[in-house]
Amino acid sequence: MEKAIQDFYPDEFAHCYGCGHKNEHGHRIKSFLEGDETVCHYKPEPFYTGGFPDKMYGGLIASLIDCHGAATASAARVISEGFKIGEKPAPRFVTASLKVDYLKPTPMDATLELRGKAVEIKDRKIVVHVTLSAKGIVTAKGEVILVQLPEK
Amino acid sequence: MEKAIQDFYPDEFAHCYGCGHKNEHGHRIKSFLEGDETVCHYKPEPFYTGGFPDKMYGGLIASLIDCHGAATASAARVISEGFKIGEKPAPRFVTASLKVDYLKPTPMDATLELRGKAVEIKDRKIVVHVTLSAKGIVTAKGEVILVQLPEK
Repeated sequence: MEKAIQDFYPDEFAHCYGCGHKNEHGHRIKSFLEGDETVCHYKPEPFYTGGFPDKMYGGLIASLIDCHGAATASAARVISEGFKIGEKPAPRFVTASLKVDYLKPTPMDATLELRGKAVEIKDRKIVVHVTLSAKGIVTAKGEVILVQLPEK
Repeated sequence: MEKAIQDFYPDEFAHCYGCGHKNEHGHRIKSFLEGDETVCHYKPEPFYTGGFPDKMYGGLIASLIDCHGAATASAARVISEGFKIGEKPAPRFVTASLKVDYLKPTPMDATLELRGKAVEIKDRKIVVHVTLSAKGIVTAKGEVILVQLPEK
């Protein structure tokens, strides 16, 4: 099975509830490079509802955009340095700022698709845009500003 | 025990994983009016870590700011109409936009304090500012733009 970007996070930075392979309670989302974008598919547990029982929890949507954004930044850094995913440990980013626009209610009975793209790559800072879709319709979009942690 | 703003959400809108009293799996945060602010205290489970095991998960921080923001908007509407909290069902808001600035890492070994304030009250739209503190230090701040659902 193809390895995800998060599979290459160093163990000491891999405790994130959303995306860390060391967190046994968490979502453990998996993001993959696809052309110049990243993609992640995720089917939430049925209790992650919003105020309405058939709509998704906005906090989960923000969480997924944040974690997928961090993976997108990590992949963008690896590629920009001339490596392929997995050729070196995935650099780890922390979020400085997260903005999510909720465009439509997201239905519960769907597998979500997140797509990310790095739109600005600087020395330590990367800006990522993410869309979240359900049943082929974009229901939320996000901008994540991330800062790279020093590599060991 | 004093009732929280969320205790007055109508049952049909109270399924939110973050703050709904009808969601038995969720955080069920409780927000209270205190002067012209709202306050919520929350101690996360130990597995809600970020990339580092001693720092908090950014997705949880965004989630708490979102839900506390919705409660703040609800309280602001009730008060602006001349009622006290609990004198009528709490009006329910959905998030149009959420922006979180992560100012410092949030330690895991702390009870979080969220403080919210409505800074703009319009016909259906309310803008709320929220701070999140741990050990007396503001570690994140958010702006939430919310839209009121029609009351039944």
